[in-house]
Amino acid sequence: MPSGPSIRAATTVALLLAATAVCAQSAPPSSREVPAKSIPVPTTVSPQLQQIIAQPLRSGWDTPPTTPEGWKQLAETTRTSALPNVQAMRERLKVRVEPGTLGGVRIYTVTPEKIQPRNRDRVLVQVHGGCYVLNPAEAALPEAMLISAIGGYRVIAVDYRMPPQAYFPGALDDAMAVYRAVIARTKPKRVGLIGTSAGGALVLEMGLRARQLGLPLPGAMASGTPMSDSTKAGDTFQTNARVDNVLVSPDGFCDAAAAFYANGHDMKDPLISPVYGDMSGFPPTILTSGTRDLLLSNTVRVHRKLRNLGIDSFLQVYEGQSHAQYGRDDRIPETQEAFGEIARFFDTHLAR
Amino acid sequence: MPSGPSIRAATTVALLLAATAVCAQSAPPSSREVPAKSIPVPTTVSPQLQQIIAQPLRSGWDTPPTTPEGWKQLAETTRTSALPNVQAMRERLKVRVEPGTLGGVRIYTVTPEKIQPRNRDRVLVQVHGGCYVLNPAEAALPEAMLISAIGGYRVIAVDYRMPPQAYFPGALDDAMAVYRAVIARTKPKRVGLIGTSAGGALVLEMGLRARQLGLPLPGAMASGTPMSDSTKAGDTFQTNARVDNVLVSPDGFCDAAAAFYANGHDMKDPLISPVYGDMSGFPPTILTSGTRDLLLSNTVRVHRKLRNLGIDSFLQVYEGQSHAQYGRDDRIPETQEAFGEIARFFDTHLAR
Repeated sequence: MPSGPSIRAATTVALLLAATAVCAQSAPPSSREVPAKSIPVPTTVSPQLQQIIAQPLRSGWDTPPTTPEGWKQLAETTRTSALPNVQAMRERLKVRVEPGTLGGVRIYTVTPEKIQPRNRDRVLVQVHGGCYVLNPAEAALPEAMLISAIGGYRVIAVDYRMPPQAYFPGALDDAMAVYRAVIARTKPKRVGLIGTSAGGALVLEMGLRARQLGLPLPGAMASGTPMSDSTKAGDTFQTNARVDNVLVSPDGFCDAAAAFYANGHDMKDPLISPVYGDMSGFPPTILTSGTRDLLLSNTVRVHRKLRNLGIDSFLQVYEGQSHAQYGRDDRIPETQEAFGEIARFFDTHLAR
Repeated sequence: MPSGPSIRAATTVALLLAATAVCAQSAPPSSREVPAKSIPVPTTVSPQLQQIIAQPLRSGWDTPPTTPEGWKQLAETTRTSALPNVQAMRERLKVRVEPGTLGGVRIYTVTPEKIQPRNRDRVLVQVHGGCYVLNPAEAALPEAMLISAIGGYRVIAVDYRMPPQAYFPGALDDAMAVYRAVIARTKPKRVGLIGTSAGGALVLEMGLRARQLGLPLPGAMASGTPMSDSTKAGDTFQTNARVDNVLVSPDGFCDAAAAFYANGHDMKDPLISPVYGDMSGFPPTILTSGTRDLLLSNTVRVHRKLRNLGIDSFLQVYEGQSHAQYGRDDRIPETQEAFGEIARFFDTHLAR
């Protein structure tokens, strides 16, 4: 005979199943109350990634600069503090990095030790992340170096102007100037765009802007954990708040930075929040995120939007990773894995 | 001049960037302390899905039955309480449902109003979810009816034996008996497997078992939010605990049910936790999950595993959804979307 508690459990579960099986007609939306918890470092990722996941919340995440000069100083500090890592990565990855200008914009040309023969006439344009405000100059290079070395591609990294030098749409204008110059000498179908975070958003914004301007679109795009919605909409802004140790919270430094870039412009403009744009006609696009990523929602929302337009779009989500951790260190197996996927995606979809 | 707080913020962020840019060598893994929070219903999903997300935690989630009779009673209750929804869904979807047996196993044959001409010689085998213990008989039908109607496929739904009638590997044995009978009359490359939750795990286990037995594999598989790891490993077991309103917690009713099915067998056996199995040679596989899903990690871990074996595998993740909510009600736009993707995937990959 079933015990009393079992019958009670059976009844309550059954009642709920019955109630949830059809659309509830009257229940008003309500919030979910989640108790405090202590989340261990997962054992389901590489030991190297476990170290990254174990790090505390990013220091200073809730004390962003409050003045243009403060932001400028922080950007410069991100540059100088990144230099040792950029230098070491460049040596390990055996890529050549040459500064220059293209379309009137500062760039770096990153060349791998060996360009794959099938990539001889292909080129990638990389737009860096950093909330539209951080990671200038050499700090922009890790992603460009990773995809160059792992994919065997020539990469043009755009060192776009940032506030206070240039506010919205300065970054996008610079990226478009480089794109125009690139497609003047390389067939657009042989050109790929790649970027992460603000760079992931800029890649999508470049697609939207190219459509507005009647320019041909690139052959493929890689948008990593894009800041696709700067209005703070997106469920993982809440569910992964204080779980993501990089962005930490929708009320952190990155949103302050985006507002600094927008400079009073409507945050729902698709050229700042591209998830609201018309992406019809976009080329094949690969999207990357992590299960702890504050922007996981804003990544999957773009994926669904592209798929619902019938666009060939591929989503990869990494176990345990917070925002953009897949692009941090070339020695982490998951970094090789993520950029291996991106390289294969470009190889499949860019014209030869 | 930068203000004092800005300099401090710049310095702390910079120090952390420097510290995180290279692999930390000595930091011991530590837990993340996440404060209590109140998570609103996201506005970034359909109004119908908002109602599902707004529902409270599944009643009885932490009071599973403790006796075989209690589980049997709960299973029967899930069946009877599902009947009205199954009946209404069958009418709306205009599918024909016929009970029968195949390979000595109880099945339902689900036939759409119109079989797509290209699907005339194709068939799908569906294995239902319910933690290996719940949703017998008609309760197993919603997923079979959805893919039948949306994809235009003939579907054979397996009503496998469950404990206390049959413990591990009873469910798998029954599913394999049906699969053998199906491939005796239909070319395996024209056969697709589909299942969600325990059914998503069973689909993967069927692939592993077919390899062990030297049977040909199916043409494609759809594994929805699979219980791919019943050892409770997987980061979203923690990050989405109390966020997912269906499974709620790794210490809830579903894990108790899986243990009841395993009946003392090693939970790390790949035929119970298929993420630990050798999936080489698997056919193209589509995986589905949601950002609030307790099993998001165990979905993406399978995706990465398949991709690292070079297998064509596609991941779709839905905004704001807890475990398996995409398969609940045919009137929800996101349900049409998810099953539309699965149908297209089968159409692309099954032989004609």
